[in-house]
Formats: sequence, C-alpha cells, structure tokens
Amino acid sequence: MNKNAYAPLPPMGWNSYDYYDTTVNEQQVKANADYMAAHLKKYGWEYIVVDIQWYAHGAGSQRSQYQYIPFSGLEMDEYSRLLPDPERFPSSTGGAGFQPLADYIHSLGLKFGIHIMRGIPRIAAHLHGKIKDCSLTADRIADPSSICGWNPDMYGVRNCPEGQAYYDSLLELYASWGVDYIKCDDICNTNLYRNNLYSARHEVEMLSTAIARCGRPLVLSLSPGPALIEQAWHYETYANMWRITDDFWDDWRLLKDMFRRCELWQNHVSAGCFPDCDMLPLGYLGKGFGQERQTSFTRDEQRTMMTLWCLFGSPLMLGAEMTKLDEWTLSLLTNEKLLAMRTPDCRPRQLALDQEKAVWSAYNEKTRDLYLAFFNLGETPLEVTAGQLARAKHAVLSGQAATSALEALSNESSWEELWTGNVVSTPSSPVSGNGSRIKELPPHACCVYHQIR
Amino acid sequence: MNKNAYAPLPPMGWNSYDYYDTTVNEQQVKANADYMAAHLKKYGWEYIVVDIQWYAHGAGSQRSQYQYIPFSGLEMDEYSRLLPDPERFPSSTGGAGFQPLADYIHSLGLKFGIHIMRGIPRIAAHLHGKIKDCSLTADRIADPSSICGWNPDMYGVRNCPEGQAYYDSLLELYASWGVDYIKCDDICNTNLYRNNLYSARHEVEMLSTAIARCGRPLVLSLSPGPALIEQAWHYETYANMWRITDDFWDDWRLLKDMFRRCELWQNHVSAGCFPDCDMLPLGYLGKGFGQERQTSFTRDEQRTMMTLWCLFGSPLMLGAEMTKLDEWTLSLLTNEKLLAMRTPDCRPRQLALDQEKAVWSAYNEKTRDLYLAFFNLGETPLEVTAGQLARAKHAVLSGQAATSALEALSNESSWEELWTGNVVSTPSSPVSGNGSRIKELPPHACCVYHQIR
Amino acid sequence: MNKNAYAPLPPMGWNSYDYYDTTVNEQQVKANADYMAAHLKKYGWEYIVVDIQWYAHGAGSQRSQYQYIPFSGLEMDEYSRLLPDPERFPSSTGGAGFQPLADYIHSLGLKFGIHIMRGIPRIAAHLHGKIKDCSLTADRIADPSSICGWNPDMYGVRNCPEGQAYYDSLLELYASWGVDYIKCDDICNTNLYRNNLYSARHEVEMLSTAIARCGRPLVLSLSPGPALIEQAWHYETYANMWRITDDFWDDWRLLKDMFRRCELWQNHVSAGCFPDCDMLPLGYLGKGFGQERQTSFTRDEQRTMMTLWCLFGSPLMLGAEMTKLDEWTLSLLTNEKLLAMRTPDCRPRQLALDQEKAVWSAYNEKTRDLYLAFFNLGETPLEVTAGQLARAKHAVLSGQAATSALEALSNESSWEELWTGNVVSTPSSPVSGNGSRIKELPPHACCVYHQIR
Amino acid sequence: MNKNAYAPLPPMGWNSYDYYDTTVNEQQVKANADYMAAHLKKYGWEYIVVDIQWYAHGAGSQRSQYQYIPFSGLEMDEYSRLLPDPERFPSSTGGAGFQPLADYIHSLGLKFGIHIMRGIPRIAAHLHGKIKDCSLTADRIADPSSICGWNPDMYGVRNCPEGQAYYDSLLELYASWGVDYIKCDDICNTNLYRNNLYSARHEVEMLSTAIARCGRPLVLSLSPGPALIEQAWHYETYANMWRITDDFWDDWRLLKDMFRRCELWQNHVSAGCFPDCDMLPLGYLGKGFGQERQTSFTRDEQRTMMTLWCLFGSPLMLGAEMTKLDEWTLSLLTNEKLLAMRTPDCRPRQLALDQEKAVWSAYNEKTRDLYLAFFNLGETPLEVTAGQLARAKHAVLSGQAATSALEALSNESSWEELWTGNVVSTPSSPVSGNGSRIKELPPHACCVYHQIR
Repeated sequence: MNKNAYAPLPPMGWNSYDYYDTTVNEQQVKANADYMAAHLKKYGWEYIVVDIQWYAHGAGSQRSQYQYIPFSGLEMDEYSRLLPDPERFPSSTGGAGFQPLADYIHSLGLKFGIHIMRGIPRIAAHLHGKIKDCSLTADRIADPSSICGWNPDMYGVRNCPEGQAYYDSLLELYASWGVDYIKCDDICNTNLYRNNLYSARHEVEMLSTAIARCGRPLVLSLSPGPALIEQAWHYETYANMWRITDDFWDDWRLLKDMFRRCELWQNHVSAGCFPDCDMLPLGYLGKGFGQERQTSFTRDEQRTMMTLWCLFGSPLMLGAEMTKLDEWTLSLLTNEKLLAMRTPDCRPRQLALDQEKAVWSAYNEKTRDLYLAFFNLGETPLEVTAGQLARAKHAVLSGQAATSALEALSNESSWEELWTGNVVSTPSSPVSGNGSRIKELPPHACCVYHQIR
Repeated sequence: MNKNAYAPLPPMGWNSYDYYDTTVNEQQVKANADYMAAHLKKYGWEYIVVDIQWYAHGAGSQRSQYQYIPFSGLEMDEYSRLLPDPERFPSSTGGAGFQPLADYIHSLGLKFGIHIMRGIPRIAAHLHGKIKDCSLTADRIADPSSICGWNPDMYGVRNCPEGQAYYDSLLELYASWGVDYIKCDDICNTNLYRNNLYSARHEVEMLSTAIARCGRPLVLSLSPGPALIEQAWHYETYANMWRITDDFWDDWRLLKDMFRRCELWQNHVSAGCFPDCDMLPLGYLGKGFGQERQTSFTRDEQRTMMTLWCLFGSPLMLGAEMTKLDEWTLSLLTNEKLLAMRTPDCRPRQLALDQEKAVWSAYNEKTRDLYLAFFNLGETPLEVTAGQLARAKHAVLSGQAATSALEALSNESSWEELWTGNVVSTPSSPVSGNGSRIKELPPHACCVYHQIR
Repeated sequence: MNKNAYAPLPPMGWNSYDYYDTTVNEQQVKANADYMAAHLKKYGWEYIVVDIQWYAHGAGSQRSQYQYIPFSGLEMDEYSRLLPDPERFPSSTGGAGFQPLADYIHSLGLKFGIHIMRGIPRIAAHLHGKIKDCSLTADRIADPSSICGWNPDMYGVRNCPEGQAYYDSLLELYASWGVDYIKCDDICNTNLYRNNLYSARHEVEMLSTAIARCGRPLVLSLSPGPALIEQAWHYETYANMWRITDDFWDDWRLLKDMFRRCELWQNHVSAGCFPDCDMLPLGYLGKGFGQERQTSFTRDEQRTMMTLWCLFGSPLMLGAEMTKLDEWTLSLLTNEKLLAMRTPDCRPRQLALDQEKAVWSAYNEKTRDLYLAFFNLGETPLEVTAGQLARAKHAVLSGQAATSALEALSNESSWEELWTGNVVSTPSSPVSGNGSRIKELPPHACCVYHQIR
Repeated sequence: MNKNAYAPLPPMGWNSYDYYDTTVNEQQVKANADYMAAHLKKYGWEYIVVDIQWYAHGAGSQRSQYQYIPFSGLEMDEYSRLLPDPERFPSSTGGAGFQPLADYIHSLGLKFGIHIMRGIPRIAAHLHGKIKDCSLTADRIADPSSICGWNPDMYGVRNCPEGQAYYDSLLELYASWGVDYIKCDDICNTNLYRNNLYSARHEVEMLSTAIARCGRPLVLSLSPGPALIEQAWHYETYANMWRITDDFWDDWRLLKDMFRRCELWQNHVSAGCFPDCDMLPLGYLGKGFGQERQTSFTRDEQRTMMTLWCLFGSPLMLGAEMTKLDEWTLSLLTNEKLLAMRTPDCRPRQLALDQEKAVWSAYNEKTRDLYLAFFNLGETPLEVTAGQLARAKHAVLSGQAATSALEALSNESSWEELWTGNVVSTPSSPVSGNGSRIKELPPHACCVYHQIR
C-alpha cells in the first residue's frame, strides 16, 4: 500500500470538534452524515470524523473546570485499547466498537474517521494492562516521562518492538471497525517538550507501519500544529496531512496569519501529502464549548478562507454543525469551479505577500489551467487591475519551461472570477501601467480568476 | 517558628544517595548513624538523610534498565501518603513509618532527614485515593500535566486549599515520625518545563506553610539544581537550602565549575539561607550505581572542595559510606579550624576568578576573623606570595566601614594555613611587588590562611 | 585608591538627559548647577552630569529623523579623544575642554560628571588617528565588529596594551579637567550582541584600571540596563553603579516593574556598589525630545518612586530641569528623613511582592534603625494595619542574630510615617489578626514607617 | 527580464576563494579561465568568479593577524563604488574596472562573476562620498548600525529610494564591465544579528531591482549560509541561488551534515532557483590561507560529494586551483552522465536518511529518466541489493500520477552505475527480501544508478 496513492487529493469532510468539543454522540454523528450524504457528497465531501475523547466517560460534563477531566473513567478493552463510550455510542456495546457506526456511514457512501491521542492509556500502564499478541504489559511500553501537555489520558509509547505491537493491535482493531481516517493528536508538535518539539517522531513511524500492516488504506492526519518545517520530509514520508497551525478559529488575525504559513509550506503539497490549514469554522460553532454561535467571519472573510484553502491544496474539514447549515454557507462548500483547483497537479505559488495584500497562483502544467487570486489583507479597499492580472500571468508562465506555456504568454486572455462569474480580459503582454480596474476588494475580501481557454 | 532561627549554620550530615542510590536499608542507615555518632558528631555533623525511593518496592532491582522502575509498587497509606518499604525498613511495619528509625537516630544525639519527590503519587490520583481531613480525592488535587522528567512516581499538586491540606497531612505525618530535615526533589528546578523552570513555585510555598503548621522545626532543602538566580529571593524566603548545581560528582570539571556558581550566589548566604553545592563525593561511593569505587578526586582536589564548601558556607552532606571511612577522609571532615569558617557572620567574597586561579575571602565583621584562600584551577603550579596575601587582606578590609577594620590595615599580620598549620607573615601595607613566595600550589590544590590576632 | 571608599553612599545628582536629550549647553548646565547649589546641595545632592554627545556637532538638530546624526562631525583632539563641542560649550575652546565648566561647578561645592560611549571614535579609526603615548594608531586598537546598536559614534576597543593606553589617555584628560564621575554607555549590556550581552567586559576592566591610574577618585557608572545578574560580581568589582533597567521614564508599568528588579538585586547593594534604578523623571522633562511636559507620574507614584529608590539604595539622579522645579517636586527631593535611609548599612530586604502589593524593610544593624514600607501596586485601595506592621517588624528582627534585635522584638513600638509625619503604634508581638487599620493606600501609593526609639 | 529564464540550470564555474582567499590577481584568474576554456567548458563549466576583497589594498598581507585588514585602503570611484585594486588587477587602471578582464573571459566563451559585500563602503559614509544620480551623499544612505560581523568594509544600505539609486549605480557599472554573476555576501544570513538573521531582506530586493534595471542578465548568488528555510519563498522570488550551509570545506563531518540540509531544501530546487551546497573543495586548496594542500577528502568522499551536488541540483563551483588539476579530479568534473542529472526537471527526492545511510532519487517526469543513489554515511561497509534498488524505484514511481510511470512499475529494469559503468538488473516488482547484492559500499562511498530504457 502506498499512502500517496489512496489520498491523491486533499481530503474533504466534517469534524465534530468545532461544534461539539468532546461531547458528540452517535445520533449527532449520524445526523451530520445524513446531511453530508444528501447535500455535499456529490461535491467530493466524504469523511465523517469523530474528534477527541469518544472513549471518555462523562466527557464534557465538567466543562467549566476542565476540557478533559483528569483521571476520569475511560472505556477500554482487555488489551489496553480504548473503546467508544457506550453512553454516547450505544451501538458500540458488546464489543462492537465503532463498527456499527462505520457501517452506517459507509452505507451512505461516505467514509469514517476517528481522532486518537498518541500513546497508551495512563491507567493501563498503572494497572499493568495486557497488550494483544505481546508478552509485555502496558507498564513496560509506556514512557512515564512522555505526556501530553493539555490532555491527561495517555503516556507515549517507547520505541521498541512491543510498542510497535501495541500500535499494530490498535490499527488491527480500527481496520476491523472500518475506520478510513485517523487524526492522531499530540504528535505533530509535542509542544510540552520545548527543546524537542518532535519528540514522538518514532510514534509517527510506528503508526505508519501499523497502517501498512493492517491492510486497510487509512488516511493519517497529524495534529496539533504548527508543524515543524525542518521535519517536512518526515511528515511527507509517513503521513498524509499535518497541521501547519495551532487550532484555527473564526478570528481574522488567525486567517491573515495563515498566508504566511501557506508561503512557508507551498512547496510541500503533493499527491498524498497535504499541509493542513485546519478545520473550517463556518456556520454554527462552539456548542460544546458553551458558546454556541454563528461564525464570526464576515462573508468576505469566509470566501477568502475557502479560496486560500482550495488554491493552496489544504484538506477541507468542515467545523459547522451541518444540520443547521444555511444556504450561504452551503454555497461556499459547493462552488465546483473553486473546488476544481484542489489537485496537487495544480501547483500553488505565492506571488506576493505584505501587510496589505496577497497574490497567489495555481497552475496545472498538464491541463494548462491557470488560476490567479488576489486577497485584500488590509483595512482599506484594494484595487485589482487588468495590468496586475496580466503581470501575474506572466510571472507564472514565464517561469515554465514548456513551450506551450511560453506560447500562451503571447495571447490575450479572458478570465472568469469564480465567486461572481464575472468575465474580464487582459492584454497580450504585461503592460507597465496598471491598466483598467477590474475589481475593488473591500477589506479582507478576495477574487480568484480562472483563465478561459 | 522562624525557619532562619533553627538553621543558623549550614547543615552538616550524611546522605545515602552517593553510595546507595535508591537501595539503602534500615541496617545500613543505622550503621552509618552509629559511625557518625562515634566519630563525627562532636565536630558538628548531625543529619542522617535517607535519599530517594525509600517507599518503592524493589527499588534498584532493575538497575541496568531503570534507575526508577516505572509503575512499580509504592508503599502508601490510606491517605495517599507514601510509607517506607517494609522490605528494606522492617521497623516501619504496622503503621510505624520512620518513627522507630528516627527514634534510634535521635537516641544517638543525631537528627533524621528524608528525601521526598514533590507532589502526590500518580497511582493515588488514578485510583482516586483519599486525602486526610479533606473532602476531595487525590485525582482532584493532582495536576496531570505536572510531572518529573526523570522520576515516574508523582504528579504535582495543584495550587488550591485541598492541595495545601495534602501537604499539611504529609508534614503532620513526618513530624509525628520525628523527621528533622526534608530534601524535596523536582522542585528547585523543574527542568522538564524549559519555559517555566520554577513551575512548582507554589509547592515550595505550600511546603513552607505545612512545615510552619506542623509545629516541628524541619529544615527544608530544595533540589535539583541549578537553582535559578532570579528566584533567589523566593528560595531565601521559603527554604533553608537550595542546590546551585546539577548532581555533583567526583569530576574535576564539575569542581572547577563550582567556583563560577559560588561567584553567582555569594551574596545569598545568610542565617537559615544556604546555597547548596551538593554532596561531598568522598571516600567510598557508587555501590548502588553498580560502580563502587573510592572517590576519583585527588587529595588536593578533596581539600579544594572542602575549603570552598566551608568558606562559601555551603551545607556539608557527606556522600561516602561511613563504615568504610579511612583516616585521610576522616581528617578532611574533622578539621575544626576549617569548619569554624562555616557561619554566615563570616561573609564569603570572591576576590578573583579566571581559568588559572580563584581567590576568596571570608570576613567576620563581629569577631574580625579574616580568612583568605587561594585555589589553583590550572594545570601548572601556582605561586602564592606574601604580597598577594597582603593585597587580598587590603581588598577585604578597606571596603569595611568599621574603624576597627581600617586600623587593622596598618598592622603587620601573621597567618596560619589551616591544612598544614604553617605560619607566615605579611607586611603592614600591600606592596606593589609580589614579595616572597609563601606557597607553591600544585594543580587543583589550595591553601587557606586565617589571620592570627 | 579603593573605588568603594570614595563612593560609600549611592551618588545623588542631576543628569541632563531627561530634559535636554543630546542638546544641553554650557549655560544650561551652569543654571542647573546654580540651582542645585542653592537649594539641594545641603541635602546631599552633588553631581552635575552632562549626558550623551557633548562632543557632536549639531547634536539634536535633526531630531525628527535621528536621535544621533550618523557620520556627523565630532570634536576630537590629535590623540583621537573627543572634546566638547565648542558651539555649545564655548569655554572649552583653545584646548580647555571641560576644565572651565568643571571649575565652575567645583566652585559651587558640587561635583562634575560626563557621559561617554565606550570605545574610540569610528572616524579616528578610519583616519588612522594617533593615540597618546602609543606607537599604534587608532585603526589598530579599534574593533570594527564591535559597535553600539543605537549610537553611531564609536568602535569598541580591543583587549590589548595599546587599547589600555587609549583608555589611560582618556582618563588622564578627564582627570586633568576635574571630572568626578563617568557614566559609560553601551557597556553594561551590549544589547546588539544577543549571544554575548557582556561583550565589552574587558573595556569595563580597562576603564577601572585607567581610573586607578589617573590618580583621581572618579565614580564609574555603567549603562545601559538591564544589567546581567550573572555578572554581578564583575560589576561590583570594577564599577560603582550599574543600571538594572533599560531607560526608565514616567510610566507606571515601568515603575511597577522596578519592584521585581529590586528583588533581584537587593543583595548587591554595598558601600561603593550600587544597582541603579535610573534617573528620576520628575518635574519638567522631555524638551530635547520634542515633548516637553511635566512628569506623567501622579503624586502618589512620585512618592512611591522616591521611597523605593531611597530604601533600596539606588543612586538618585534627577532628570528634571531644575530651573523649573516646583515646590512639590522640591519637597520630594529634600525629605531628610527619607534620604537618611540611603546607606548600605541600612540593608534593604523585600518582605513580600505580588501583583497587588510590595513590602520592604531596611534595617541598620549598627544603629538599629528599622524602616518598613508598604506599596500599593494594584488598582484598588490597600489597607495597612498595625498587625501587618508588627509582623513585618518581627520578620526582620527575628532573622537577626544580635541580642539587641531580639530584645527589641518584645517591645511595643511607635512609628513615624516619613511622608506625613503621622505616628502610629504597634503591639509587642505580632498578632495573628490584622489589628486596626493605620493607613489606606490609594492605588500606586505608599507609606514608609521609621521605628521611633 | 525573468531571472529564472536565464539560469534554467544550476550554474557551474570556478571560484577563487578556496585556493586564493583574498589574494587572487588578474594573471591567476586568466590562467584558471584558460584552463576552464580548454578542458572544462565543453562539459558546461562556464563561470569564472573573483571572490572577496578584489578592491582592497594589500589584501591578505597581514594574514596571520587578519583575514580582512580593518580600515585598510579600498579602491573606490567618485561615486562611492569599489573598483579593482590596480596592484592586483593592472588592466583595471584608468577607470576600466573589470571590463578588460571580463572581455578576456568572454573571449574564451566563458562568463565572468564577482563577489561583493552588501552595502556601501564605511569610508564613503564617513567621508560623505557622492552617489551617482542622487542628491544625497553616502552618509545619508548608510546604516551605521548595520555591519557585517566578520568583514570590516561596509555599512548596510537603508531601505529608501536613494539606497536603491546606489544599488542601481553599482549594477550599471557592473553591467558596463560585462559582469554575468554576482555573489553577494553578508546578506543570506546576517549572522551578527541573532534575532534578525535576515536583516538585509530589503537589500536583496534592491539588488534584484537593480539587476532588472541594468538590462543585463546577471545571476544573483546569496551568501553566507545557512539560508533560513522560513525565507525560502523570498530567496526564490529574488535570487538565483542561496547558500544552505556555512562555509563548506574538505571535512567529512560537513559533508555528512549536508545530507540533512539537502533533505530540508529538496522541495526548493526549480529553474532559476537553486539551494547552494557551496564550493567543491577538490584538488589543490588553501594557498591564500597559508595551508596549501590537496583536498582532505578521500576519493570515495569526493564521488559522494559530486553525486549529491549533481543529483540535488546544487550549483557547482569548483574551489580547486585549476592549473594544478590532476586527472582524477578532472574525471570527477567531466562525468557527463552524472552532470546530466543537473536539471530541475529531474526532481530530487530523499528516500531515506539515518546515521548509516542516505538514499536519494531523481526523476524526470518528462523524459522518464530515473536515478537512484545510495550513500554509505557510516563507518562500516554497506550492502546495496537488487531488492533495495527495486523498492526505491517503486517508491518513486508509485507516487507518480502519470500512467506511463505506473506502467513502468511492472517492468524488469536494467541500470547503469554512473561512476563505474557497471550494469545491473532488478526484478519487475519490489521483492520483500533483499535480493542479490549488487554493490558493497566502503565507508563514505556511494553508487548512483540510471535506469536504462
């Protein structure tokens, strides 16, 4: 199995965290899956991901004091593997685990994902729990000095064959359930360890090995961010996606900052390898956090986010509660011309970035599709002109070795703006002046043009 | 109770770690106590300290793999308080704890100390153990994200009244046993937390409060080092001694480095407040580490160490197995004239430090006792001259406001070297030249002069 | 000469910077000296210090663009030594230098100080200028990679005999002028060099040697801050005062932060050795900066500053334009009972510090004078009670070995508040409760009590 | 002009530094150019680059004390622009500059490059030198706080139109001379400024603008390294090559470390954009440094270096004195099959890296050329097997979307080793075992296979 082969495009799906925090239950997951199957599946949305602490008894019940209740009960099998909390996931009882839920989701033509914390439950180590197909008990493979700084559930696993056996037993279980996607947390940036931020490097490799061994093509997603650029090769070699930012929420400062992060990671997008800008905080959010609300992003900001994520090639994981999705938000998620940019063949490239604006291109050398996007990052209106569009085109194509690209330079061109459908024209060569104004962008707004051929 | 009042001089004693690591037992402690009572007590040596993991079952039994066996059994009472391992400390059975051993040591006219790790046993938190006189259980006061980077036994205690109650219950127990000295570890420098090295600051305060409340004058010693100079005031306010170095062993590089550390901390020695240069690795060492040996320090280095520790005012905690003590080592520990420097009234002051040498003074403004020490830190012989001695005297006394000190400047003086008993004279005023040679120091050797009045 | 002998108390004086920036001229210096002689001298104020760029042509004339005009003309003698700008200091013409001005100031019974930048003028190095009594030219002793990050005038001097010769020639000149005080800048913390903040360590030693050789007792003051605590011994050995803060101005946040700095440095105040809290931004300030104003500090904040500086033992260098001094400000500077605390015999000690309050003591073991100060660092009123006062007294005296101190503990005591003259009483022993309220401090205010005996 | 268009392949040439340090003269440059024209030109070698301080009088004459004599004379024109030292470059007299030398080199069919330090001569700033076509003088555009930490010649240029005018005037001059390549130093990593390592970012942009304006296609090379990965986009946008390492010399530790650097930068090689592994320290080296010698690299290490540089796509700049080149070294530089890898179409990719070995591939999607290289980084022999070769091929091709690549997977293949010409075969599918041994690599050796189609 080649991990790059089974995730050629950045994954699209829904994740329970932004709305439910730790509290999501089976009914809610199904309701969201139903919505996705009915309204989003045909646009490519396919993953339904249950986020953190599906195994924890009473998760979220002491929310004013703890996000994760320390030393609370965890549902666990005889081999030190966590199971769904039967209170919230009734179909899991009797040893069924997530299989019934996965079956349901598969029956809708969708895929099923779960969140895990790296490591082995602390309680298993303290109680010397068994490990499947392994002569050692949990206390022998758990590393008591490897913990997560913000979640109390697990110890890291030592780099040894018995540790690999534990991860193998986990993936064997997940594969038997029908899991298609694993979001592993406290692993991409182990931020408690300031002088060794990638301290769980060996656990990434063990997960990768366990996935290969389990015989099921599971997407591997690493959290939290920011990922470490000096480990890019390692992420690319062993995982499918990795978070390039700490938790992303509906705050313009975070969105503006993402341009800098995309600049850093733009050369690391390829089939099966996706720098991850994190979930899309759209629609209704925050119920599990005790602050249910509609996204704080303006409509312009929402389009800016969607444009950047699509052009850059980030995975798209929707944070909204889908059963409350409004028409506007739905329209953001179903803009087929925008979603068409989301192939690594369409190589993203930043052309300019400063405090006031960003300009990006995406060019598909094979199909010769060319996209150009202008983002207003400032607080005053920003003019986009035909001259800028022509020069951006020139900057992209003149760097291409292919004859076809160079020929294209000498032609006039027409462009469709993907959010409005407006069509504009640019002259054959980059004029030195700015030419006519084709768009005035309000603060935080964007436009994205696709060359018509 | 004023902590400074009951520890006016830097504590002197013996600690089990350097010889026994985690393995010391009751018989061995008693044998060392017997020796101290017989041979060292009259010189001021008084504390017998049982170091780390006296509560751990099988401590040291997997030494090739672990110094501290993870998730091993810990002896614990119903209130989540650790008790001596009855295997190694038979007299502790039946709830007696360390009381019988403390009684024995007290009967010899000595004092009894124990090592503790800050916090509450991890297993107590996971099992929701009770806390004495407290409505909350251990899981509520343990901080799951506060661990020790090198020992797996404990979680840090949260800063809350119930956390204080736990520390109060600990000290109540220790006081009932008759403990006189606590060496608390993983607290002076919580080195796992690189961006918050004093992360257990509140636990220092809680310990201090608990000691005050227990009604027994317990010396509080903080480890490990290096202590943080920017927290000097806090250490001085709440503790009696704090390690200014990571573990100190019989290695010249560490000893040479101690001069720089003493420079840094020299203004922080006062009654009840002692920067701690760590144990004295003399005589027989290392059995518990699987490398029993005589100290690697040369005799010159041993005198250099003793001179610096005494002059600076460090606590003196002997690391040697006392039942194997030889005459030479005994002579180092019983040099009464040297030990007499060990009062904070005798203020230590570095006069010079470079790669080749160190010069220190200690001056008692009240008694007008003046000490001057010369250390050869280089690898070639170092000459000490009458002129240097006279100038050092001048540097110390001329900075004193007292008339008596200034008068003393105009006198010739005679000096006794404290290791050899040799007497030398210096002229009344600091000559510009070097004067006659009074001593040639081999590499790593020292001499220390006391002015005869 | 012993540097500690000729500066037994923290220096008191006036500095031109806070009001004039780089622009002060002879007339203005004299006018301020006249004022000091007439109104402040009798309280101990004595230094008149001309701050930065007295040698620079046109200093301050391009203030909107530069604080220090790069590559502007510098007045310099044939030996690469800077001289006063004759335009601003007319009496310096004809080779007289600062001698006439120093003479004038001495004639008033005051002392004269100047600011210098460490090193040798860059232009002298580029022009291969001569050095007095030295065979090498300036290019050979200047270090081209040692510059100041914020002032363009100088290169650092290399650590070599010819470099010492240059510093010797400087001090010879300054001594011949009658300079009593040198404030050397870019030396205490060479902040351009982030991995070697004390990169000019050797220049401190060279200055100290040059002062000793010049035969005149010049006070050596090192800037800028923050001084490095790990270099405390070096500052104490070679200088008289060193800045423990970056530039201090009339901003409450800076004043509040000073308590933390004083905590850090409290054990480093002794005769001839003074951690320096920087100038007092009182009265009229800022003209040279283009923002002439009265201090932004409230009256409570001004008293808090004066109390802390005096109790801690900081030098007092007035930043105000004295010719515009109002009665209120004058009263701050002439509170004799407050100024009486300013002797290192009166050892400062922080008793408490948190976000809401600070409590300090100063105790003179010889005279048995005891001072206790309470500072409200918060934003709501703070009560001071008789119980707190009694307990603070107990905390100070019970740590003293002297019998007299212990006896004093058992007495009732009366106290005079030094800003108001109010007298209060405290019981003989520290009551456990708070006792009666003796003062309510508004936000940022303080009170300071002297025990009446 | 598009910088990427005129440097589609990584530049190949010779640089004077490794052999001559600062001392190279016209005759020596010509002799090396002659050699290149005669023996290397036909293989693609074309640049002759004069490295640092061609403008400095007496450069190298005080080598025991200084690499760069501080404050020495610099040859400069009336517009503050440095000119060749006429002593070493006689043809430059009379205002000819480097034009005669450039003409000579062009006459051989080669290209001419020079090294510059960023900024403007310090002496020009201090003397208020003129700037061509600019109303301001040098003191107004020089930044006195922006220096190089290791060379004393220049000040950085401020970010202002007049600063751009100065860079424009420089490039106008260089273009008039016929310069084809500029290696700008102290700009890629301004290592003096530890908290702002890319402090001359604006000077990179000004150089880029000046090159575009001068009308001549000059390659822009940035030094020193290590380049900052978070500035990758900026380097790619404004320069042609940037050093990814500090000075590289003939030391195995540096060569081994280069694998890690290539891992980091592998996604940043494209037409006109080349991470630079630094000069090739082959043949005779070090004369100007007073340590003339043959390279310390073994022959195996030399092949390893050449293989990595070529496969990765680094520029190749020979450090050897070419007039002394031996047959062996010449053979390294003229292996046409190896040099054929050096196109960005041949995308480099690390397949494995640990302390013992590295495996790299280069695949040209257009031509379907596939290269696989195995490097022994350890100290014991390393076996390379047919199975490993087959699996590496699979790892590369299975990630390709192209049908042609996938088809290729199912074929047996034959491979030519490029240093030996040996041919080996691999089976059609990656066997799980290792298959037969095809090569045993001694420590530090490598082999590189090209698939025969």
